[in-house]
Amino acid sequence: MPINYPNGNQYNIKNKSSKSIVRTVNFAKRGMTLEEEINESNAYYAARGQAVIHKKPTPVQLVKVDYPKRSAAVIKEAYFKTPSTTDYNGVYKGYYLDFDAKETKNKTSFPLYNFHEHQINHLKACLKQGGICFAFLKFTSLNQIYLLPASKLFEYWDHQDSGRKSIKLADIKKFGYSLSYQFNPVIPYLDAVDKMIENSIH
Amino acid sequence: MPINYPNGNQYNIKNKSSKSIVRTVNFAKRGMTLEEEINESNAYYAARGQAVIHKKPTPVQLVKVDYPKRSAAVIKEAYFKTPSTTDYNGVYKGYYLDFDAKETKNKTSFPLYNFHEHQINHLKACLKQGGICFAFLKFTSLNQIYLLPASKLFEYWDHQDSGRKSIKLADIKKFGYSLSYQFNPVIPYLDAVDKMIENSIH
Repeated sequence: MPINYPNGNQYNIKNKSSKSIVRTVNFAKRGMTLEEEINESNAYYAARGQAVIHKKPTPVQLVKVDYPKRSAAVIKEAYFKTPSTTDYNGVYKGYYLDFDAKETKNKTSFPLYNFHEHQINHLKACLKQGGICFAFLKFTSLNQIYLLPASKLFEYWDHQDSGRKSIKLADIKKFGYSLSYQFNPVIPYLDAVDKMIENSIH
Repeated sequence: MPINYPNGNQYNIKNKSSKSIVRTVNFAKRGMTLEEEINESNAYYAARGQAVIHKKPTPVQLVKVDYPKRSAAVIKEAYFKTPSTTDYNGVYKGYYLDFDAKETKNKTSFPLYNFHEHQINHLKACLKQGGICFAFLKFTSLNQIYLLPASKLFEYWDHQDSGRKSIKLADIKKFGYSLSYQFNPVIPYLDAVDKMIENSIH
């Protein structure tokens, strides 16, 4: 039985025991979820004063909250609510940024059911206001991440009734920006945002 | 004993029974909190396609969540977390907007303890990125609301150790924008934002 890291990646005993190892640098393989990778990238950008981008908290409907004396309030009953927006937004070089991040195990296309109507509507409204809107699309099996401008996402979303219910990887490669993992920030996605701004494609 | 509305406002029987009433229009007196007033204004702006501005959900730290079969997940134990940002942000005419909303019962000055260090730091970071940042200051006893540009707020915040721990109402009137309640939106604050953009004062 192979010994694996908690995230399922293989633990390489040979490399571990040798002092003169040849490192295959793959910054993604640290057991982080896409959300954690984005949060860490945002923390890096924030610390360097490059951008202020945060993940919004998950909205919950509070039903019962206890306020014990001399200690913090305890939520005893609450339910998850459907968010009315995307998960991330912020400001970069005077631009409003808005995006969501999605993952698939598929290898050749990205299924549109990963998105919800309210997220698409929110992105459309933000784009109309001049925001820079996009989606992170991660192919977990391939360990590939793309940033797809929202305007492209809408084209596929709006035509799914009459056609494909997914976006081909080939199309994502064509219309999106490939993001490579690196040390810091883990996902240097503002480079792709710069290109979107340059090309006026959001 | 006078009969009052649930929010404590007086129920005027004379006006109610007469058909030719002289209405003193005061749109604020509907028992709404400042947060509800802002949310309603944002919903109005969103419906008209004028801006996309949302209140961020309150962050909670989940400790115990039950996932019963065939029904929604129930949060059984959770705690409120300190937010790392302000409560509101969004996009308007291509501008990134960021603000917080505070209330006081005082009548002559606004105490700075209503603000927290992390909120000020967040506003400073957003301003540095070219965002339009400000605070709603409501004097509940006077039923007056002002929008104060963040840059002015910082001046008072940064000097409170050596001086006043509050901002005089007279100064708020001088450096801020007075907001009048109206029917729709309840608080027409984008008018003040337009003036901030015009004057390049955020």
